[in-house]
Amino acid sequence: MDKKMWGGRFKKEIDKDFFEFQKSINYDHKLAEYDVYHSLIHVGALAAAEILSKDEEDALVGALREILSQIKKGKFKFDPECEDIHSDIQNKVKEKAGKAALKLHTLRSRNDQVVFDEKMYVLTQYIETIKLLSNLLEEIFKKSQDYEKRYFIGYTHTQRAQVVYFSDYILAYGQMLMRDYDRLVKFEEGLKIHIGAGALAGSPLSPDYYRRAISISGVIRKHFGELSSPMDHVSSRDFVIEFLSILAIIQMHLSRMSEDMIMYSTREFDYLDLPEEFCTGSSLMPHKKNADFLELVRGSTGKVYGSLFSVLTTMKGLPLAYNRDMQLDKEPLFASVETVKDELTIMAKFIKKLKLKKDNIDNALKDEHLYATEIAEFLVMKKGVAFKDAHDIVGKLIRHSEEKKVKIQNISDKLLSTFHKDLNKKILTKVMNPKYAVLSKKTAKSKIPKLKLH
Amino acid sequence: MDKKMWGGRFKKEIDKDFFEFQKSINYDHKLAEYDVYHSLIHVGALAAAEILSKDEEDALVGALREILSQIKKGKFKFDPECEDIHSDIQNKVKEKAGKAALKLHTLRSRNDQVVFDEKMYVLTQYIETIKLLSNLLEEIFKKSQDYEKRYFIGYTHTQRAQVVYFSDYILAYGQMLMRDYDRLVKFEEGLKIHIGAGALAGSPLSPDYYRRAISISGVIRKHFGELSSPMDHVSSRDFVIEFLSILAIIQMHLSRMSEDMIMYSTREFDYLDLPEEFCTGSSLMPHKKNADFLELVRGSTGKVYGSLFSVLTTMKGLPLAYNRDMQLDKEPLFASVETVKDELTIMAKFIKKLKLKKDNIDNALKDEHLYATEIAEFLVMKKGVAFKDAHDIVGKLIRHSEEKKVKIQNISDKLLSTFHKDLNKKILTKVMNPKYAVLSKKTAKSKIPKLKLH
Amino acid sequence: MDKKMWGGRFKKEIDKDFFEFQKSINYDHKLAEYDVYHSLIHVGALAAAEILSKDEEDALVGALREILSQIKKGKFKFDPECEDIHSDIQNKVKEKAGKAALKLHTLRSRNDQVVFDEKMYVLTQYIETIKLLSNLLEEIFKKSQDYEKRYFIGYTHTQRAQVVYFSDYILAYGQMLMRDYDRLVKFEEGLKIHIGAGALAGSPLSPDYYRRAISISGVIRKHFGELSSPMDHVSSRDFVIEFLSILAIIQMHLSRMSEDMIMYSTREFDYLDLPEEFCTGSSLMPHKKNADFLELVRGSTGKVYGSLFSVLTTMKGLPLAYNRDMQLDKEPLFASVETVKDELTIMAKFIKKLKLKKDNIDNALKDEHLYATEIAEFLVMKKGVAFKDAHDIVGKLIRHSEEKKVKIQNISDKLLSTFHKDLNKKILTKVMNPKYAVLSKKTAKSKIPKLKLH
Amino acid sequence: MDKKMWGGRFKKEIDKDFFEFQKSINYDHKLAEYDVYHSLIHVGALAAAEILSKDEEDALVGALREILSQIKKGKFKFDPECEDIHSDIQNKVKEKAGKAALKLHTLRSRNDQVVFDEKMYVLTQYIETIKLLSNLLEEIFKKSQDYEKRYFIGYTHTQRAQVVYFSDYILAYGQMLMRDYDRLVKFEEGLKIHIGAGALAGSPLSPDYYRRAISISGVIRKHFGELSSPMDHVSSRDFVIEFLSILAIIQMHLSRMSEDMIMYSTREFDYLDLPEEFCTGSSLMPHKKNADFLELVRGSTGKVYGSLFSVLTTMKGLPLAYNRDMQLDKEPLFASVETVKDELTIMAKFIKKLKLKKDNIDNALKDEHLYATEIAEFLVMKKGVAFKDAHDIVGKLIRHSEEKKVKIQNISDKLLSTFHKDLNKKILTKVMNPKYAVLSKKTAKSKIPKLKLH
Repeated sequence: MDKKMWGGRFKKEIDKDFFEFQKSINYDHKLAEYDVYHSLIHVGALAAAEILSKDEEDALVGALREILSQIKKGKFKFDPECEDIHSDIQNKVKEKAGKAALKLHTLRSRNDQVVFDEKMYVLTQYIETIKLLSNLLEEIFKKSQDYEKRYFIGYTHTQRAQVVYFSDYILAYGQMLMRDYDRLVKFEEGLKIHIGAGALAGSPLSPDYYRRAISISGVIRKHFGELSSPMDHVSSRDFVIEFLSILAIIQMHLSRMSEDMIMYSTREFDYLDLPEEFCTGSSLMPHKKNADFLELVRGSTGKVYGSLFSVLTTMKGLPLAYNRDMQLDKEPLFASVETVKDELTIMAKFIKKLKLKKDNIDNALKDEHLYATEIAEFLVMKKGVAFKDAHDIVGKLIRHSEEKKVKIQNISDKLLSTFHKDLNKKILTKVMNPKYAVLSKKTAKSKIPKLKLH
Repeated sequence: MDKKMWGGRFKKEIDKDFFEFQKSINYDHKLAEYDVYHSLIHVGALAAAEILSKDEEDALVGALREILSQIKKGKFKFDPECEDIHSDIQNKVKEKAGKAALKLHTLRSRNDQVVFDEKMYVLTQYIETIKLLSNLLEEIFKKSQDYEKRYFIGYTHTQRAQVVYFSDYILAYGQMLMRDYDRLVKFEEGLKIHIGAGALAGSPLSPDYYRRAISISGVIRKHFGELSSPMDHVSSRDFVIEFLSILAIIQMHLSRMSEDMIMYSTREFDYLDLPEEFCTGSSLMPHKKNADFLELVRGSTGKVYGSLFSVLTTMKGLPLAYNRDMQLDKEPLFASVETVKDELTIMAKFIKKLKLKKDNIDNALKDEHLYATEIAEFLVMKKGVAFKDAHDIVGKLIRHSEEKKVKIQNISDKLLSTFHKDLNKKILTKVMNPKYAVLSKKTAKSKIPKLKLH
Repeated sequence: MDKKMWGGRFKKEIDKDFFEFQKSINYDHKLAEYDVYHSLIHVGALAAAEILSKDEEDALVGALREILSQIKKGKFKFDPECEDIHSDIQNKVKEKAGKAALKLHTLRSRNDQVVFDEKMYVLTQYIETIKLLSNLLEEIFKKSQDYEKRYFIGYTHTQRAQVVYFSDYILAYGQMLMRDYDRLVKFEEGLKIHIGAGALAGSPLSPDYYRRAISISGVIRKHFGELSSPMDHVSSRDFVIEFLSILAIIQMHLSRMSEDMIMYSTREFDYLDLPEEFCTGSSLMPHKKNADFLELVRGSTGKVYGSLFSVLTTMKGLPLAYNRDMQLDKEPLFASVETVKDELTIMAKFIKKLKLKKDNIDNALKDEHLYATEIAEFLVMKKGVAFKDAHDIVGKLIRHSEEKKVKIQNISDKLLSTFHKDLNKKILTKVMNPKYAVLSKKTAKSKIPKLKLH
Repeated sequence: MDKKMWGGRFKKEIDKDFFEFQKSINYDHKLAEYDVYHSLIHVGALAAAEILSKDEEDALVGALREILSQIKKGKFKFDPECEDIHSDIQNKVKEKAGKAALKLHTLRSRNDQVVFDEKMYVLTQYIETIKLLSNLLEEIFKKSQDYEKRYFIGYTHTQRAQVVYFSDYILAYGQMLMRDYDRLVKFEEGLKIHIGAGALAGSPLSPDYYRRAISISGVIRKHFGELSSPMDHVSSRDFVIEFLSILAIIQMHLSRMSEDMIMYSTREFDYLDLPEEFCTGSSLMPHKKNADFLELVRGSTGKVYGSLFSVLTTMKGLPLAYNRDMQLDKEPLFASVETVKDELTIMAKFIKKLKLKKDNIDNALKDEHLYATEIAEFLVMKKGVAFKDAHDIVGKLIRHSEEKKVKIQNISDKLLSTFHKDLNKKILTKVMNPKYAVLSKKTAKSKIPKLKLH
């Protein structure tokens, strides 16, 4: 059985180390299903063009459908000796369909196949990714409702800043992921699947033949577009890079969520009760319960960024049209897609089981610093103080409180009035309060956006 | 005059080295115009809320309009001693408007300002970039028409592959840049400008006041959206990363175009007559005419990719909400935007003046290798040979031609028939021909897409 | 005055946009001093070869020394209209030395100059960087001595792990920076400065003439090496990438130190009293004291990593020998060097002023979890329990303590004995103690390494 | 059999998706051999400390040696259900050694094991890499000798520049790879292997016990160093990043070599006869012989740069000490190492079989442009013309030759004298000649450096 699809002009045997080096079957076997689709469409077009007889067509379609069925049942075994998945399937067709297989690759180039296969892969992964992202969003939305009206500590610079609703906090991540969702949807809209580019110069087969032959799957029909530039088609990997860019932003958002939750679950912050099912222990230290899931998500940022950079680097300065360098887009693509999908799957379950440690949060909400801004805003809104002055007054009040180690709410009215004539205990008691802090803000509260599931 | 906008609670002077290290005025002065817009809208909202008197409003608006006018005339001088552009403009307002300036920053945070300013910058740059991209596309389209029906050598693996139209070649780049165009348009559609997030917890000012105050510019009105998550708003830089991702893909396309043209203009290929205005010489070697423009474009890929990775790295794992790390998104953003705009500007002029060296191209078109695929396709389409066999027959023909150093078209009919019974000189003469090669392809030829200018 | 150093064969004027795009004077003016050195050495060699008369030599040396003196006094003003610093200095020499200047560039290429200049820059920066790194190390060593024998909380996974000495903690960073120090020293050892490569093919001037002429500075003499490959010399930028790689690792270490200190200075951990001089406040929230210095260090990781990848990307796949792409190595080099130097300078001052909040640390040291490992180790070492069993016993003890909300040290002897027969209060009191924990470890304690200053 | 090494305090079963996500056995099984070494040393130390009885020691050593023997014979099968290779080996020891296995992990942490294992991996790979690099250098040196004194075309900006020796050309790559060689040697010198760090706080076992137990292998003995900072030891991955940085520079050099050879083997340059064993054909175009090996090397730059960036990103801002993120350093490390080793292996064979196409090179050497610099240098050296003038004179001569389409050597003496009075045919014939060009350079010719094999 041939392990490669070329060689008439070659006299020397390929070097063995090189053959192993250049093989892609160890990873491109993941494209098997889509490669069969390409062949089915191509056979349809060859039959329409009467290059295949009815018998030949039947033999090829039969063989291909058999392989497809094995793939779908998870029973397909790729031949690790083959150069790539295209050669492997070609061989398997030959085993089943005999001589007709010699015509399968008629007027076709692997350059065309591999772009088709990868676009199908990306589309399939798009569908799975957006579902997983929706699930995670649903869990975020639910969690925000479970803890509706619950106050939480808002941070900037990892320092306590102002009181917010917990729902405002967690829906900030909802917002980020919603934008990711929108980016994915727009990406899908722009993705066109073509066929018939040949190696770079187009095909002697009429596009009509292909158009008739695309009834293989709904995804293909929906995305099938007329080929407007064969040279561009075989030599562009924008769709890979664009998908990886979107995944990189999702990954960045997940890394931030993870960092927050790692910190909030330390013994020192202690706001979160992390679900034990997603933590691990230590082989040495018996007491440990570590947020390994969150750490692995944070750490995976390296992999997902690295993959994007890998493909960008590979594509830099490549002359038209196809170059073998492009084979190397697959491993980083697969790595990023699989990582992000795993993270989304597990993060949804993680968020579902996440619990707030309300007592600890309530305790933190007593920190008077959290209300410094509200005091200043009160002076501005109710007492007509210029903001610059109000900021200064409260700054000095804070400094006094820290130096004297006295709570602001325990300072006497007399002393308070030296900071500003209108300051007194009664006002401070009213203002230095989570409910007042949150309700004094008129900006629209975070809403749960509606998902139009794609 | 204050060089910074905070400090009531601080007892110690800021360290001088640190003050210099943390200053951003040396680059964020580019946001001056947008920072004035933010202040104008904010003043409008403060006036609507009756926090400013009519006199105060007039004083502030007058001062801001004066600064705006200086900026627009290119007469604005930023104060390099200031911490950032926000402090600088605050100070300049104070000089002009006096005491009212103490109220300018009422209920406002720089966190909110800086996102607003950067989004305005990105929008403005989007508009310029898409215009420059359109210009380049126009030049590519024109060039494809200037050389309509002209044959060109199509390459894969930097080896001669098949004959194509020059228009097919150059429109492949047209296709790539059109996708960039579409990506830019979609990016703009998703960009929403907000105001009123405060530091992270929202503002006591009603969104209505802001809505009324946004009549500053068409761009703002078009993109203004209700703030749905203050915490997300101040802490996200997706719009920067997404824009940088799109620029990175544009840059990748430009690097490929440049690589092609560098190679095509070597003494060895010699297909292109590069416009001298964009070449440079050598300080030592008097004969040199180097394609420096193209090399600088190719080399700038480092800068543009590096900028994307810089911001992605900075944003990795940042806890909510604003962190000072985020200040560092500006330099890479500005660097990429300016580089890509320069490249697009000059590339359009470069393409306009680019000429083909027709004799050299015609000479290369005589290379018989270019027609190997057409011979195989002829055997398949007209003589019913299975493709696998046809590929093999032509492979052997090529090997024979190379070993014997004889042109295929000079091989006798008798010898030809030993490769395949139906092969003869007459057929080869017909098939081994640019016109036949190109016309035998039924795939739609590259078309010039219509630009809907945004 | 000529703005560029070539052009005899060119008929057309250079395009203005392109001229601006390709100019490097805005950043390569930082190489002015080193460019004068190159010229001084070159003049010496030309004179030795009798290409320059004594008068010409004197005129040129006089002009160059005058320029050098201006540079050293900070009075040198580069001409922003010039193409690059080489042209600028050539012009300035012409102004001062007249006709002799026409001979300055004899048998010399800018390709040779720019590598020389950049290597000199890198060497100079190496010297400054290693001094700053030494300063920081000294401060770390001092701080470790200031807090000798003070216990601290050791973390893994950001969860409390075991008790350590504070000196062990801070000297872990000392170790990292010492390795950076060693890497810098080794880098310097490998750096050779050459001269006389011409554009790529070498120079008609004998190396002897150059050897005689290098008495310009000690740094040059120390690093001067015989040119063994002109083509490699003009086309390699390994020394830039290697320096940037070392800076990237330093930056990574600084980002980790910063992250730790940001976290330890939160209201929740509260182990550190950050020196106010390196913190900033908020324009809105009067109470804020943010660790902006540390955040900017952490955020600068984007810039420093981005610079490394920028140059790596630019150098990918460049054919021999010099290509114009290489001009783009300077901005990322300068950016990384300046950033890391600033960080080291300020971090040394920061560490010097950093104080521990001893009460808070002592409080945290009471956390019983910190001693779980010591209990297990005690069972293994003193009671012959298999470690696997000991780990399990203590794990259950911890779980009991958490579920019943009881301190381990308050559990009765009777109940303790159900976990393991040899467990009792007395033993636990002995073992669950910082002193015991630290002294039970036999691994050598962190030592302060000796710096051999370079 | 336990699939993980912790859990006493946990009540809930680990989530299955998370367990799969966090497993590392699919890649860290490559560390099996080194993990056994760690255990052997550790058992030695435990026995010395009398924590193990002689029987227990024998049982454990026996089991470990059995596993080691399987690994070395390639018969070791890792259990894909296990969490990591450490758990897997622990389980296999238990099967063989029974109860004694419960003591194997006494006073040991996986944090310590994994750094040991990875350092051993890196050292082993260092040894293989430097051997492969030496082989490649040998082939380069041989090739330079095979073609001694052969002239070649030197390029800058991918434009013909000046004549060089082919040996000067190829030894430029020799120089680059020699620097890589030196960098590797220095890297090895700095690599210290430690043991006994515990999880972060050190071990109750005396370092003496470890020192006595390290007689496992020469590599370990040579690199074993006293542990000076347990916290640094378990939390640093500098050695991974430094190794990846060196590999990235090697990769960059290989990408440049590949780019050159791809170009030189085009139909247009046609200087090289690429060994067919390392080329592939096209599935569609029968004539194709593509330099796929070189393209894959060039393309792999994405992978190798991406791996470096991946680990740098992962390590950014990680708090001390160990964090689970660090697990993700292995896949990029392995990917880069394996890729670079494959490239070096095949490139050595490739270079060995590479042939110059002498006729084509000789033809190119007739290009008069190649000697423009020599004419100018002649005027300077022999006729006392100022270089600036000589450059100009030759520039005009070139322009004349191009415009009039006349060879410089065919211009009449009379006309020549109008360019410069001393120019004539005789002189030009002498100067415009490869031998003259090369011999006129006094810079030391490239030498073959001596390899001190490590």
